[in-house]
Amino acid sequence: MTIKLNDSLLRGFISESEKQTIAPRVAKAMATLLNGDGAGNDFLGWVRYPFTAEEFLPEIEAEADRLRKQSDVVLVAGIGGSYLGARAALEFVKSPLYNPLRDKETPEIYFVGNDLSASHLNEVFRLCEGKDVSAIVISKSGTTTETALAFRLIRDYLEERYGDQSSKRITAITDGAKGGLYNLSVSMGYRRFVIPSDMGGRFSVLSPVGLLPLGVAGIDIGGLLEGAKNAALELCSLEPTTATVVENTCLRYVAYRNILLEKGYELEMFAGYDPAVTQLIGWLKQLFGESEGKEGKGLLPIGVDFTTDLHSLGQYIQQGKRLMLETAITIEKERDPLIIPAGGEVDGLDFLDGKELSAINQTAVKGVSLAHSEGGVPLMELTVLDRSACSLGYLFYFFMFACGVSGYVLGVNPFDQPGVEDYKRNMLALLGREDLADLREQLCKKLTISES
Amino acid sequence: MTIKLNDSLLRGFISESEKQTIAPRVAKAMATLLNGDGAGNDFLGWVRYPFTAEEFLPEIEAEADRLRKQSDVVLVAGIGGSYLGARAALEFVKSPLYNPLRDKETPEIYFVGNDLSASHLNEVFRLCEGKDVSAIVISKSGTTTETALAFRLIRDYLEERYGDQSSKRITAITDGAKGGLYNLSVSMGYRRFVIPSDMGGRFSVLSPVGLLPLGVAGIDIGGLLEGAKNAALELCSLEPTTATVVENTCLRYVAYRNILLEKGYELEMFAGYDPAVTQLIGWLKQLFGESEGKEGKGLLPIGVDFTTDLHSLGQYIQQGKRLMLETAITIEKERDPLIIPAGGEVDGLDFLDGKELSAINQTAVKGVSLAHSEGGVPLMELTVLDRSACSLGYLFYFFMFACGVSGYVLGVNPFDQPGVEDYKRNMLALLGREDLADLREQLCKKLTISES
Repeated sequence: MTIKLNDSLLRGFISESEKQTIAPRVAKAMATLLNGDGAGNDFLGWVRYPFTAEEFLPEIEAEADRLRKQSDVVLVAGIGGSYLGARAALEFVKSPLYNPLRDKETPEIYFVGNDLSASHLNEVFRLCEGKDVSAIVISKSGTTTETALAFRLIRDYLEERYGDQSSKRITAITDGAKGGLYNLSVSMGYRRFVIPSDMGGRFSVLSPVGLLPLGVAGIDIGGLLEGAKNAALELCSLEPTTATVVENTCLRYVAYRNILLEKGYELEMFAGYDPAVTQLIGWLKQLFGESEGKEGKGLLPIGVDFTTDLHSLGQYIQQGKRLMLETAITIEKERDPLIIPAGGEVDGLDFLDGKELSAINQTAVKGVSLAHSEGGVPLMELTVLDRSACSLGYLFYFFMFACGVSGYVLGVNPFDQPGVEDYKRNMLALLGREDLADLREQLCKKLTISES
Repeated sequence: MTIKLNDSLLRGFISESEKQTIAPRVAKAMATLLNGDGAGNDFLGWVRYPFTAEEFLPEIEAEADRLRKQSDVVLVAGIGGSYLGARAALEFVKSPLYNPLRDKETPEIYFVGNDLSASHLNEVFRLCEGKDVSAIVISKSGTTTETALAFRLIRDYLEERYGDQSSKRITAITDGAKGGLYNLSVSMGYRRFVIPSDMGGRFSVLSPVGLLPLGVAGIDIGGLLEGAKNAALELCSLEPTTATVVENTCLRYVAYRNILLEKGYELEMFAGYDPAVTQLIGWLKQLFGESEGKEGKGLLPIGVDFTTDLHSLGQYIQQGKRLMLETAITIEKERDPLIIPAGGEVDGLDFLDGKELSAINQTAVKGVSLAHSEGGVPLMELTVLDRSACSLGYLFYFFMFACGVSGYVLGVNPFDQPGVEDYKRNMLALLGREDLADLREQLCKKLTISES
């Protein structure tokens, strides 16, 4: 079992009859996903992708190898789904401290093009001084503002440093047939990888979008795909019956979160117990927030880092308004154990002498869970076996599948993001894009009126 | 004006009469804070601390200098209020990339003792190899589990490496007269600084708790205190009248967030537009969450990093449930400007050629604000002048003052944290602390029953 679900503390919050009532709806939602006859069914490429992705693997591995060998630094430009998955995997499988810890065979990796901060970009360029640099640019259209602007600066930088050879230092991951970045890549001779057209950004981590940067970091991307395939084999072969929902880990998770939402819990708080999980929760926030947060519906996903945040949001969680359910994401096997040495009489913790820190962390999970549960927070724990690429591949697929099914239970199209463009249109209009002149006028009027 | 409040987009969400109604309550709450006659008034040391802190400054600066000179790495062990403020300031004034970017006069800084992750600690020790290491340990009691266990490992490590000289490599920030860490420091001869006994952790960033690590990083801690003093001079001299509340930036902010809470908005989403603000929001989450989240009350503080998270939670914010108000934390002056080079015909953004990236970022704030406001999210913007230590000192005090007043408006004791101990007691009981044997038995029963 790569992922286990501990639902024992949900007992006081969810009744058997509630489980029985929702099960057929979850089964039906899963059938809709697998039959491909629901809303957004032109974006289901990710469902069976792990069965065929191995075909592309040798090409991706070769390119990762090439980039690794020619680079001290690889800049990865992308935002949203073209950023969060690779970063989550890098920190989960390697470390949040990947850059300073890495062995010298693998380059430093900096994620850029995911904000509009001049300081951030300037600082990353400063870190490139005296080092050999390559870049991976990830954008389906090539027109996403943050990534496109960062990429302009990267191109200029690489062309200035490497002249004619700069095209060998840029690899594009983009649409397979159209768009500005596609066209530029063809004309400049950049290596190219395709973002499948039937896969939204937040479901693309197992495509070249995630695989190439992770390959550069020396992560076992074959293992990542293997884990995803195991999950896909298991989940895609399920019978859409009530009995299945009651038994299957992924579907039980979907059932619980929807029951709790319907009972008035408005937020799902994903809690990690290791800094290696922080960015994974960032990926989960996008996955669920963008898939379900529409039509006034959905659980708002938030993230907390325990035990750090127990000394921060812990007070609110324990005694504030009862708004949230909690989903702890824990790791079964600590790969880097540490024994607590004796501490003398200093800290009143003598009973911990000689214990493993990971055992204490696991006890913290129990202590926290009991405290929050008693405080009125419905809580479940999803435990992943270890921090291997294979386990993470399983986890990625597990949550994408859960999210697709859950969106259909909720009654939304889990694969669109109709609200994401609003700010971009406003921003581009205010910045003076010609075809948005009318909108610009309206917005300026609002800003003037409201600022008067 | 170090901090400006733009409330123009609140117009459709808050009426004049609501402002008039709450103003006397805010004025009264401020009077309670300044008169020191409210709940938790034994923890008001922070209010007038900036007026006297300069006395301690030379001693802190001398110690920071000593640590800087003898160290390639300084480990800072602390959790919650003994961690979040220093990290926030380091990233805001210097950079989230402080370690790789720093000049070689200042040591690397790693924050530890803020989780129970064995990997995290092991990795930090690995990064210490071959380098001269010192440690600052921050804990009022010395018994906080996370920090105490990390400190045991640090002590062992330093004693093994430096023998008799190791006591010169440990500086303790702790209670001034009692506790395990105090006693150890006295017996071992560690340098000591005092956490004032009338100051809770989340209000302690301007004490040695924040100042010493920041001094080590080469931050202008005199400037930090100067900014805080400016804020204190301004805010502590206010007359507690309705007119003051209507005029003063800090009190208006307090009024708005309480009006909105009372109108049913449950969350305050702090939005940063630069990675340098991310950890500052972490500090804000603790400040407000721990001060107000009690008795079933309070706004739940959450954080988002824009524009990154516009490609993640943006969809939910635009079209999900209407739960949140938004407080953007923006920076007026970009200190490291960057001009966008021409991009050819690639990205459809030719109208941005030659613009400053910071101007585009500021336009993004406007575009986002209009979109979210139209989508039903009441929104205000707090703009800090720049990323100087002085501006940050002002900001720290501004928010602590806002938090204290706001807690009294809400009708809670903003200076206690009665719910924080619950998980710790559970955890220590489960780990076998003898005096908690009864609790252990109860908890084991619950775990067995619920896991059966």
